[in-house]
Parts: sequence; structure tokens; C-alpha cells
Amino acid sequence: MTQTPTSKDGCVWRATTGLRKGLPSKAVHSSSANLHEEYDVIVIGAGFTGLTAARDLYPHAKTLLIDARDRIGGRTWTSNLDGQEFEMGGMWVHWWQTFMWGELVKYELHKNITTASGTTVPEKVYSRNKNVLEVNEEEGFDERLDQLIAKFFDIDGLSLRDIVDHPYDTFHKREIFQKYDKMTSQERIDALDIEDTDKIFLATFISNFGLTTADQIGFAEACKWFSLTGTTSMNIKDTMGLYKLGNGGMTSLANAIFDEYEGDRIFNSPVKRVTQTASCATVETEAGVAFKAKYVICTIPLNVLKDVEFSPPFSPLRAEACAVGHPGRGGKILYTITPPEPPFMSSSTLPTDLSFLFTTHENTAGDSGYLVSFVHTDSKIRDFSDADAVKAAFRAMVPETCKSEIKEYIYHDWRNDPYAQGTWCCFEANYSTRYLEELQSKHGERVIMASSDYADGWRGCIDGAIEQGIRSAMTVKKLIKF
Amino acid sequence: MTQTPTSKDGCVWRATTGLRKGLPSKAVHSSSANLHEEYDVIVIGAGFTGLTAARDLYPHAKTLLIDARDRIGGRTWTSNLDGQEFEMGGMWVHWWQTFMWGELVKYELHKNITTASGTTVPEKVYSRNKNVLEVNEEEGFDERLDQLIAKFFDIDGLSLRDIVDHPYDTFHKREIFQKYDKMTSQERIDALDIEDTDKIFLATFISNFGLTTADQIGFAEACKWFSLTGTTSMNIKDTMGLYKLGNGGMTSLANAIFDEYEGDRIFNSPVKRVTQTASCATVETEAGVAFKAKYVICTIPLNVLKDVEFSPPFSPLRAEACAVGHPGRGGKILYTITPPEPPFMSSSTLPTDLSFLFTTHENTAGDSGYLVSFVHTDSKIRDFSDADAVKAAFRAMVPETCKSEIKEYIYHDWRNDPYAQGTWCCFEANYSTRYLEELQSKHGERVIMASSDYADGWRGCIDGAIEQGIRSAMTVKKLIKF
Repeated sequence: MTQTPTSKDGCVWRATTGLRKGLPSKAVHSSSANLHEEYDVIVIGAGFTGLTAARDLYPHAKTLLIDARDRIGGRTWTSNLDGQEFEMGGMWVHWWQTFMWGELVKYELHKNITTASGTTVPEKVYSRNKNVLEVNEEEGFDERLDQLIAKFFDIDGLSLRDIVDHPYDTFHKREIFQKYDKMTSQERIDALDIEDTDKIFLATFISNFGLTTADQIGFAEACKWFSLTGTTSMNIKDTMGLYKLGNGGMTSLANAIFDEYEGDRIFNSPVKRVTQTASCATVETEAGVAFKAKYVICTIPLNVLKDVEFSPPFSPLRAEACAVGHPGRGGKILYTITPPEPPFMSSSTLPTDLSFLFTTHENTAGDSGYLVSFVHTDSKIRDFSDADAVKAAFRAMVPETCKSEIKEYIYHDWRNDPYAQGTWCCFEANYSTRYLEELQSKHGERVIMASSDYADGWRGCIDGAIEQGIRSAMTVKKLIKF
Repeated sequence: MTQTPTSKDGCVWRATTGLRKGLPSKAVHSSSANLHEEYDVIVIGAGFTGLTAARDLYPHAKTLLIDARDRIGGRTWTSNLDGQEFEMGGMWVHWWQTFMWGELVKYELHKNITTASGTTVPEKVYSRNKNVLEVNEEEGFDERLDQLIAKFFDIDGLSLRDIVDHPYDTFHKREIFQKYDKMTSQERIDALDIEDTDKIFLATFISNFGLTTADQIGFAEACKWFSLTGTTSMNIKDTMGLYKLGNGGMTSLANAIFDEYEGDRIFNSPVKRVTQTASCATVETEAGVAFKAKYVICTIPLNVLKDVEFSPPFSPLRAEACAVGHPGRGGKILYTITPPEPPFMSSSTLPTDLSFLFTTHENTAGDSGYLVSFVHTDSKIRDFSDADAVKAAFRAMVPETCKSEIKEYIYHDWRNDPYAQGTWCCFEANYSTRYLEELQSKHGERVIMASSDYADGWRGCIDGAIEQGIRSAMTVKKLIKF
């Protein structure tokens, strides 16, 4: 058995030894020994979009896969620490997440799915409403949420299907979608004839679509989520908060795709500039190395695009879309506590720092409990190495009766990661209307833009990333052929 | 514009001209001009399983795709008649049908989805209960069905998830699944404390999972369907009875996959014998032509396998599974009536001949209405060219107030089609327990078995076919590589 390599990404804090940067991960890979100056296609980014695009293209085109990091997976990767697997980014899988599920079954990894105890059978559900931590029994929780969700999209005598009848074709009913895209989810909630506590409860739930606040999530965008996940709280939890991948985690899927790819690859190579002429495109790294290709698939995250030089430059509209970006800019913290807590799920919104916190099933060591949390985009915690602040954030999400001690926490501060500059994407009001089609269009004739951040289906998810990878590969395959 | 070729499959009957065999279809293709004697892989069957397997393999292996028919698509194909598109077999699409949806988006065909009027907004819902045709308003219908479905799987204090927690991994909870796999759906219905009319109503609904009767559908098998489709009647209708593909129909998807395939192909070549030795496999056609290959992917439908000679022969268990087969052996009839009827959906069970009948949206000609129906497996109609019987079958599904005249009907008699010998697959009680793993296993070292009929997920659907094609291609890719 070879030792698991260590990525520069992520950090671990321990009560005993303090902070250490970098985490072991099977997502770390080496560059090709020999690279060429010219390729048919260069794929920028080895997240799930780039991995699937490169895999689909390499039999048909001389391909180079290039990434800024020392590892594959982008905003999704699994760290292996002390025999435990920790998902440092994307983690939820389900068979209604079309593209990801297809890949899992293709590589026979789907039988490895497992569940997170806090979301499956929580004994307690907490929801923090400003300064009060409410304790709900699971049963009433779902019914209450279902009723509120039904009211949320029951607008102007329309049904959800009247607004979003086709979640993979955003503008299928362009006029009506764009009408409701003007409204924020918070505005919609404010207009409901429900109790104030229910408004906060519903806003907290919907804020999790984007790790932001409901005023930063478009109403039509939220409707699109409900259209994909089903409309009951059970469906929503099932599809995006219940099943995760055991036995290697999400990196096992990334590695399965990467293993199939036989083209060239180069890591630790942030891209500085992408140039195109009538005859070819050139990709230059920060280190000054240049590669030429007929076509480039650019999978750089939306919030990072503004920092890369494109020549000729982006259209004014695309440049504006990149400057605005998407609002999700939190980070992920995984706590190890002792003794373990019984399964629970806790959610909150500002001014609390964590959006949610729940127990997971990784309880193999008898005296340790593992918990997953996401730090809110607008949390006051700006530096995750501040152990006191991170510990206080945990305390705010559990009742005072919880006396467990935090032994360790590991994190990926996605906001301050220069190659992500954010978590998952969920659009603000009017963003789809203004920018989506521009973002999805080619930049010039030779640069195909592809990212989970502007996918059609499960936007912001691993599934959307794979959708974009498969579609961009088909686009390039056709361009090369004709 | 080239003329649409005509397949030998299907028939059209017209009031004016009587019966004519064969129907125009863009699924008809020519064989390769030059074939070889030896390949890396031979894929038997150009249905969706074979198409995807061949497409995924051809860049990595010298591949031959062979089919008994003059067309691609297997049990799914679109006929083009007088400017209308008619789905002669599989037709429903939805984004929760993982593999099919992935392919639709890959080829940018997903924006072509449309709906069938009779299942979307039926003005009337009829259900025939022996000799009485009930007329239900749509509203009460769904609520009634939802309550009955909930009772159906509320057994021994278990929830649906307790029985089938993972629809793509049938034996994930082997003991409990196999316990309930012993029971038929009819036995489960009979045990419910509900009115007799509700029993018939529920049995009729569930019988449509297999185009048979509820006593021929395993209870655990029915639970698996609910697990895939969601558990409400709305979810079920959405996922498998609402959206179809416009602008070319399902054959446009088959053609997109086939267009990407660049290997050899031969049509009109039923396979007579598949032989394997330690070093290679040989496929012989009825015409006496033999092709050799390292590996064979056999996608011949379950009910047809018994008629093909395998040497060495199948294991006794697989041979038994093939002899039993699956019970769905009906056929499809599409009626053209004048004048059109307002949107309706009608369903029934034995002794009525049609399992269901509904209006579709293909109402482009002002004076014509189009309807889709499936003939029940145990219908007394044994010959679809018997126009009087086919017309009487229609009359039994609509009230006497419907005076529309049948101008034309087209059909594919799947039961009597030697290369299908059935419609879609839904297992009887105990069939999964006894045979599923054996059917999915390789036959010897060189013949990989793959069919929608024993897929893990959407078994019996186009989706299951693509699942099997993608997985079998991966299996062969690994075998070739190592």
C-alpha cells in the first residue's frame, strides 16, 4: 500500500497540536512526464467539468488537462485523515441527480452510497431564530416545512410547473420565468400571509440553496430547485442531503473518471492568460509556460474568471456577469467531538456563523463524533484558523446541554481559495435573465465555456459540473470533426 | 430532402385501403459496405443497450454492431406517417430517468420534449371495472390513488424505504427484499382493508407497470417502481407518463447515438448461434455468416434468448430464467379518429383488451385526433390485423357518447415480433430473487449479457437499456485493457 499523498488544500486544527496546513487526499496526482507544445484541445480545470470533458475527448483529440491545484476534483474532494474520509466540498448524491448518478453506476461505485445520520434519522432538529435555538421533534418539522413550501410557490394562481415546467431548459417559458426571476426569495416570503417565525423558518431553509440569505436567492431560481428535487421536504432532503459516497468518497468518482483519461495532464499550474486568434488558442500559466490548441474548454469557476486575462477580452455582458459573480462564498468545517452526540441536524441563518451543522455516520472511533457544517457567506468569521471563533460557532448551533469537547476540526475556506472564491452557485434575482445565456455561450470561436456555475440542470452541484463537461466535450467533438 | 426509408416493422390499417405492412422510419439504416471476419467486440442488438455499448467502445476496440432488424432502436422506434410522428414502442422521458436524460442533454435533444394531452390535463379519466366504465373527474382521481398507494406499501409497520432503500441496488437489503419479493402485488392488494372497487382500481394502476395483471407483478418489484418514480400519483405520472420527445421522437435519440458510432454495422442479420472457446467468441447469423471477436456483448431481449443457440450452453439457472421470461407480452396500437376527442385518459384491466388509451398532442390536422393504447398481455385479440376486434377494443375504453370514427390505426405487435417476444419487462414475484444476479452475470468468459430486461434501475425502460449499454461497455473496456 502506498501512502496517501498530501494536498496543499485544506487545514486541520487539533486541540493538542494546533493548526497544520494541507490534508492527505487520494485526489493528488502527478503531471505527465512529457508535455507537448500543441494539442487539439486544452481543458482548463480538473474539477468534475474538466475531468468528464477530458475523458470524453481524449480518444478523439490530443488533449491536455491543466489545473491550478495539486489535485483533481475542484470544489469536491475527499481528505483521508486518521482512517476517516472527510468530504471537503460537494458530497450529496442521489439517483435523481442525473449526470452524477450515471457516472457512479458506470464505474460501479453506486453501491457504496451511505447516509449521514444527522439528516437521515435525527433525534433532534434545531433551528436557530436569531437569539433562540428552537428544538423540534422531527415529525412536526417536515409537515410544517411542506406547508410553507407549498405556499411559497403558490403565486398568482399558478403552480410550480407554470413557472418552471422544465428545469433543464430555464427559458422554456421565458416570459413567465423572467417575470418571477425579478423577485427575490425573501420578497416572496415577506408577501406570504404566515407567522413571522414561519417566515424566518422558511427563509432559513431556502437560504441553504445558496449558503446565503433568501434576499440573495432569486424566487424563480428557488422554484427551479423545487422542480429538480421534488416539492416535498422529504424529496428535497433525499435528493440533496441524505446519501453520500462511502468507501473512498467523492474522490473515488473523480479518480474513476481520471483513470479512464489517457491524455496529458499538468498540475500546480494556474492559468494566467487565454489568447485566441483565427487559427488557434494559447493558454499561458502563471509560470510562463504556453500551450497551443485548436480549442480550449475553460471550466474556471465563475467567481475566478475575472482574475484571468482573456485576449480578446470577454464581451461587456460576460465581463459584467463575472464581476458580479455568484453570492455563495462560505466555507466548510468538519468537527470531531468527544463524546459523540446523538444524531441531530441544526440550521440557522445570520447572524449565526454556521448555516447548518449535522452529525454524520463516520463514527467509527467509539469516543469520537463527526459533524459537518458550512460557514455562512456573511459570517463574521473571516479566518478559519481562529479556533476560538470556530468553536463558538459550533456552540451556537447546539443546546447548552451539549457538553462535548471539540478535539479537532478540519476545513476548506472556499471563499479565500483563489481557485474557487466561493462555494456552490445559486443565482440572485435577475441573474439568469441577464447573464445565463451569455455565460453559456462560446467566447470567440475557440474557447468553450463550461462550469457547474452556469449549468442548466443541477446548477452549483457536481451533477451540473458533469452535465457541462459532457456537453462541452460534444461541442468540441463536433468542431474538430467538421 | 431524402425520402424516409420504410421498415418492415409495424403495420397500418386504413378504413379506405385496408392493411399495409411496414412503416416509414428514420430508424432504418444500411449495413457497412465492407465487413471484417474478426473484431475486438461484437455487439448483438442495436436497441438502446447495443447502441450505447457500441458507441462507448468503438474508440477503444474494433467493433461490429449486428441487428436482426432493418432498423435501430429495438423496442423503441418512431414511425413517420403522413407528417406525423408515432412512437411504436418506448416513449416516456423525464429527468429522473437518469441515463436517458443524460443522453438527451448530451445531444441537446432535451429541449424537444413535449407532452401527451391525455395524461397532462385530461378532461375525463375513465377506468373500466369489469363491465362498467367509470367516469372520474381528474381532481378526485389523484387523491384517491395517492391514498391507495400509501396503503399498498405500508406493510408490517415498514416504510417503502425499509423495503427498497436503494432502487439501483436491488439486494441492498437482501433479506427484507427477498421476503417481500415472494408476494404478488395482487396478494398485497387483497390483504388491504379497502373497498372492492378500490382494489380493482389499484390493481389496474399497478398492472400498468408490466402490462399484465397485478398477480403477475411482484410486490417488491412494484415497491421498486415507487422508489424510482416517487410515491405520489403526480410523481409517477410525471416520470413515466407525461413527457415525450417531439421533433423526431425517440428515433432522434437513437440516431444521435448511432451517428456518433463509427464502427461497422450489419442489419437484417438475426443471430443463430453464439459460440465461445478459451481464445475467442463466434457469432453466426441465420444466413450462415460468421464473425469472430474477443468479446461479445449480447443484448438480445430476455424473452428471445431461448431461441438462440449458445455453445457452451447457458447455466441451468439462466436457461430456466430464459424459459420463464418476463410476462409483458402485449402490443401497441395508435388510433387516428375523426373528429378528435377532448383530452382523456382511460385505463382498464382484463377482460378488456386495452390496458390504457389516451389522447396525445399530435393533433396537427384539424379533423383528426390521435390516441395511444397498449393491448393487454392476456387480451383475446391475437391478431392486430383484425380491424373489427381492434375497433371494438377502442369502443370499450370510451363512453357510448363518443361517436368518433376510426380512420386509421397503426400498430406494432410486440408479442408476435420474433426479435422482441414481448413489451417491457416487469418481474413476477420471486423472479428477482431467483434469477436477477444470474441474468446479469457474464456467460462464460467472453459473452457479456446486457439488457434493459435485467437492468438494475429503470428495468424495462429505455433508461435501463442505456444503463446496461454503458455498464457493459465499461466491462469490456476493462477486459480488453488488461
